[in-house]
Amino acid sequence: MKDMVEAEALIAKMGEAARAAATELAQAPAERKHAALIGAAYEIRKRAPEILAANARDLEYGREKGLSDAMIDRLRLDDDRLRGIEDGLRAVAEQPDPIGAVIDEWDRPTGLHIQRVRTPIGVLGVIYESRPNVTADAGALALKSGNAVILRGGSESLHSSEAIHACLVEGLRQAKLPEAAIQLVPTRDRAAVSAMLTAQGLIDVIIPRGGKGLVGLVQREARVPVFAHLEGICHIYVDRDADPEMARKVVLNAKTRRTGICGAAECLLIDWRFYTQHGATVIEDLIAAGVEVRAEDELSKISGTVRAQPDDFGREFLDMIIAVRLVDGVDEAIAHIRKYGSQHTESILTGNDATAEAFFAGLDSAILMRNASTQFADGGEFGMGAEIGIATGKLHARGPVGAEQLTSFKYQVTGQGTIRS
Amino acid sequence: MKDMVEAEALIAKMGEAARAAATELAQAPAERKHAALIGAAYEIRKRAPEILAANARDLEYGREKGLSDAMIDRLRLDDDRLRGIEDGLRAVAEQPDPIGAVIDEWDRPTGLHIQRVRTPIGVLGVIYESRPNVTADAGALALKSGNAVILRGGSESLHSSEAIHACLVEGLRQAKLPEAAIQLVPTRDRAAVSAMLTAQGLIDVIIPRGGKGLVGLVQREARVPVFAHLEGICHIYVDRDADPEMARKVVLNAKTRRTGICGAAECLLIDWRFYTQHGATVIEDLIAAGVEVRAEDELSKISGTVRAQPDDFGREFLDMIIAVRLVDGVDEAIAHIRKYGSQHTESILTGNDATAEAFFAGLDSAILMRNASTQFADGGEFGMGAEIGIATGKLHARGPVGAEQLTSFKYQVTGQGTIRS
Repeated sequence: MKDMVEAEALIAKMGEAARAAATELAQAPAERKHAALIGAAYEIRKRAPEILAANARDLEYGREKGLSDAMIDRLRLDDDRLRGIEDGLRAVAEQPDPIGAVIDEWDRPTGLHIQRVRTPIGVLGVIYESRPNVTADAGALALKSGNAVILRGGSESLHSSEAIHACLVEGLRQAKLPEAAIQLVPTRDRAAVSAMLTAQGLIDVIIPRGGKGLVGLVQREARVPVFAHLEGICHIYVDRDADPEMARKVVLNAKTRRTGICGAAECLLIDWRFYTQHGATVIEDLIAAGVEVRAEDELSKISGTVRAQPDDFGREFLDMIIAVRLVDGVDEAIAHIRKYGSQHTESILTGNDATAEAFFAGLDSAILMRNASTQFADGGEFGMGAEIGIATGKLHARGPVGAEQLTSFKYQVTGQGTIRS
Repeated sequence: MKDMVEAEALIAKMGEAARAAATELAQAPAERKHAALIGAAYEIRKRAPEILAANARDLEYGREKGLSDAMIDRLRLDDDRLRGIEDGLRAVAEQPDPIGAVIDEWDRPTGLHIQRVRTPIGVLGVIYESRPNVTADAGALALKSGNAVILRGGSESLHSSEAIHACLVEGLRQAKLPEAAIQLVPTRDRAAVSAMLTAQGLIDVIIPRGGKGLVGLVQREARVPVFAHLEGICHIYVDRDADPEMARKVVLNAKTRRTGICGAAECLLIDWRFYTQHGATVIEDLIAAGVEVRAEDELSKISGTVRAQPDDFGREFLDMIIAVRLVDGVDEAIAHIRKYGSQHTESILTGNDATAEAFFAGLDSAILMRNASTQFADGGEFGMGAEIGIATGKLHARGPVGAEQLTSFKYQVTGQGTIRS
């Protein structure tokens, strides 16, 4: 257990530095945070050769470790991706600063005036996999929301993350903000992750970004609160009152625009009356686009479909595969989604207001949509500028987690020598 | 471990019933929830003799167990206290219904209209001590906020709580709401508490109400999120620019109005310039009122004070005792509170706006006050109608926890066949 003891000491030291930085950051003027992010963006540009050299070392290490082509691709940086990182930092910098905003205020008969004011949470812990750009995104969103952050990237991307992290620290330094506001765990040791997950009192919330393996581990082991979603088992329901052309267009987009994101549709539910009246065009379009359609009963007679197995429902394919089932109206669709969904995002296609209302009322997924593609489940598309992830829990943050969701609040109460009788 | 197995089975069964009830409750019209609470209030009146008889059994059991007079008093019900319970139910009934409110809405360039809508959290677990009225308060606030609740009262108050709980269930029944919406753990077995604390997936949040022993146990052992405060180590700081008469009045109220509540001041910090200029009247008033003033250094020379020990700072006396220290301005007051406070409530007395701003900015307690008594730290005084407790954590609920803080939200997104490019 020597590793664990060392890891705990490391995280304790980083956590204490983060907490001190958080105290300072909570009172930092918006301009200084803005300046730090703009400064970091310039550094990314200036140090591009160093970052790409660090990335080359990671790629070499990754190849030696036998990473898959897909993982190597995620790990790879190039000029375009660096520009993306730079632009991302500038986009977060230009967002409104959430801290200090008066969320609500009111007067009491006692003469007290009460304000509810937005504050940072404190110290965030972000645990992610091999995409090096998350280092910049997560660091930037934490800083914008006035939080200190401890970043723990995938071990394969350590050198790339260190090079990007150095740019963020340089931005902080130039803006005279505490350098410990954005820290990167400087080791590949997995024990550091466990130490973060149990760092109660030092880390206020953990945000895992990655696949089901990582998120599941974090959710199981964390003693610190977690903002996350384990799976995005998103449903799209074609109601009897759906416009058939709209249904073709939206279902195809929900499944195929990008299959690897959490907002991709994994299950299509079709009202049997819609199917009787309008036929199989929605499914035929999917097949024509190269989707493997796993269909049940009646629908499995459609040419080109595959017979669905029971475990195809409630499954996150993240691939060109979709499970399809006929249902008897919105109530059965709701019951199916309640049973198999992951409370991420579901969409109903219908021209009927009452049916749409029933769908919205009967489900409590983080995001419910009408006549729109589930692929819009994204902080940028919601107008948040950026997101650190999507949460399906019901406490604090829910749906896309942007800078505002990374805040807390306090009450500021003013009297005139007011005493309680 | 037979007890634990049985307790887990019991809580699992109650949790599943609660979850089913929560689904129904989330969609219940405001009128039905209102009717259930009014109905329950009538039942309390109607069944007063039964409730008092049940309470007599609890008092007898309590005396046999050798409970202190203070605990017996907390446990005791009489006509006045029953009327208080009845009035409390009516007060919660008349509050605005938080569920379904559109918290925020906006349009996106894509044509999507996004609404953020208030929803219940799901299932609450409330663990409390021997005050039987908490059964009614907690049940009512949970129902108002559309949540199902599992109540676990102190073992001494089991019969009283059962009698009150029966009134709540009768209210639910009359309003045709699921009776499992408000459940009471029907056993004195402590293993039921442990089972609640680890009922992830069944209970969404635990709210402990009681002393430090109970809250500490819950915070240490819970795997379910907790809304709570462990201690209310509230500070009051008399600045150099405080009005001396206001200071006398507010400090006396903050300490002595009620000493046993979490908002009572436990530590008085005085700027040395204020003391030099205005003398010891603030402290003399406290002594005259019967408060034991534990004073440091210079202040301990004041007649009637007791010399403070180091551990008197950062201590929750909940009694006619206060720790007093001289400080050098607002920065030293902030540093003291950061070191010794419990992030509950702190008040500054000053006529200087800049100093008050520094105090508000430099601290991140749940409640910060200016020229007001810390005794106002209370949901009723904040205008929330009622509170289930006060939280000092930074996630989700903070400060007084009323019906609105017991809610979550979901996004409702409407398009016109909108697809993502």
